[in-house]
Amino acid sequence: MTQEIVAGRNAVFEALASGRSINKIYVRTGTQGGSVVKIIAAAKELNVPVEYVQGDKLDKLAPEIRHQGVAALVAPVSFSMLEDVLDKAYSSGEKPFLLLLDELQDPQNVGALIRSADAAGVHGVLLPKRRSCPLNMSVEKISAGAISYVPIVQIGNISQTLQKLKKEGFWVVGADMEGETLYFETDLDRPIVLVIGSEGKGMNRLVKENCDMLMRIPMRGGVNSLNASAAGAILLYEVVRQRLQKAGK
Amino acid sequence: MTQEIVAGRNAVFEALASGRSINKIYVRTGTQGGSVVKIIAAAKELNVPVEYVQGDKLDKLAPEIRHQGVAALVAPVSFSMLEDVLDKAYSSGEKPFLLLLDELQDPQNVGALIRSADAAGVHGVLLPKRRSCPLNMSVEKISAGAISYVPIVQIGNISQTLQKLKKEGFWVVGADMEGETLYFETDLDRPIVLVIGSEGKGMNRLVKENCDMLMRIPMRGGVNSLNASAAGAILLYEVVRQRLQKAGK
Repeated sequence: MTQEIVAGRNAVFEALASGRSINKIYVRTGTQGGSVVKIIAAAKELNVPVEYVQGDKLDKLAPEIRHQGVAALVAPVSFSMLEDVLDKAYSSGEKPFLLLLDELQDPQNVGALIRSADAAGVHGVLLPKRRSCPLNMSVEKISAGAISYVPIVQIGNISQTLQKLKKEGFWVVGADMEGETLYFETDLDRPIVLVIGSEGKGMNRLVKENCDMLMRIPMRGGVNSLNASAAGAILLYEVVRQRLQKAGK
Repeated sequence: MTQEIVAGRNAVFEALASGRSINKIYVRTGTQGGSVVKIIAAAKELNVPVEYVQGDKLDKLAPEIRHQGVAALVAPVSFSMLEDVLDKAYSSGEKPFLLLLDELQDPQNVGALIRSADAAGVHGVLLPKRRSCPLNMSVEKISAGAISYVPIVQIGNISQTLQKLKKEGFWVVGADMEGETLYFETDLDRPIVLVIGSEGKGMNRLVKENCDMLMRIPMRGGVNSLNASAAGAILLYEVVRQRLQKAGK
């Protein structure tokens, strides 16, 4: 069986809490702190074996990751089927809300966006198979474990997927420096696929042509751009704001 | 004279564009790309010498930074005085808008927040002298050069500074999991100091007690928190949204 390593206290705890299949947890001998005690207690409750190891074992298992003395051997992230994500969204009684990451390569951005997407309650994250950063240990750690909660769908042909979603009543909205409307004046209280493009190049041309609406985030400083994960957080929560405010919550 | 290294194409270009004092630019021999051509042209126009060097020189100057073949020798970031920042804010005709980073240690978060603060048009970023991450090369690179635009004020005693600002009519607002109001229902169209706390611990107790309003960002997923820089981006732009919408723009 293929296995993956999840490292870092937050990530390991969230992997446990999310019910993800975990084969073993490694704790560096002598590691202390409340969060480690919490992890060990949760592992015990879930019958996940805990093995105490020397520090260098973790350094080898999770090189270049700040593992904080804790790592877990888990089943790989399982991708969801688009149909299942849509079924679940429809049956939730909420307007469907998807996030598409268009050719994002930086694990820092991908991990941060998955975390923000989870917090904003998206029904799924669409990740193109081509030119996307792999869902590796860095992404998992930066997502603070959100990767174990939010359904992730691998998609082959982006245009075909967007066409299909549009036929189902989705609006495809992207952020663009030259967008016609300000993002907070764009009606996002409908079935939405929010597209975030890569930082350097923005959205792919084909993806942009598939957008029903291009929104602009006003830039009021010296540097005329935001980091992709900052722009994503702002737009994800604009959807949340509009929906909660219209619902009168 | 003390000098600092700025590395990476964006950061070097923004340092040039912002008018920051630059002593020399190093370009790795053979480095290509439109952004490098742009940097060299801008340097020429500003009479900044460009020196072509071997790649390992840049690796030594900027270790652990993705320098992308370009680095600059610059005067250190100069801090601003709070009084000057306030004067400038008052004379701008806008309601003053400050960001306080409370004990943020992670250069990734500090850099990203300075970049988002610049984009949101804050008048200044307040950085406590104690327990803050230094404004090093990583912060500068991650800020994409925004550090050269947005005035940064070092503050000694946080409580005293907040008391002083409150006397001047500022409202101190912070984000907190247990905040009474949702952030988008909090009136932010007034003189504001927005406080972002560190991710692990949240706001310092003393700082929290100084807050006039505690706002809550709704959490709708499995992981009950956002990254500090994502939360910051959402709140910074909520101030922008409220102000632009009230102004009817």
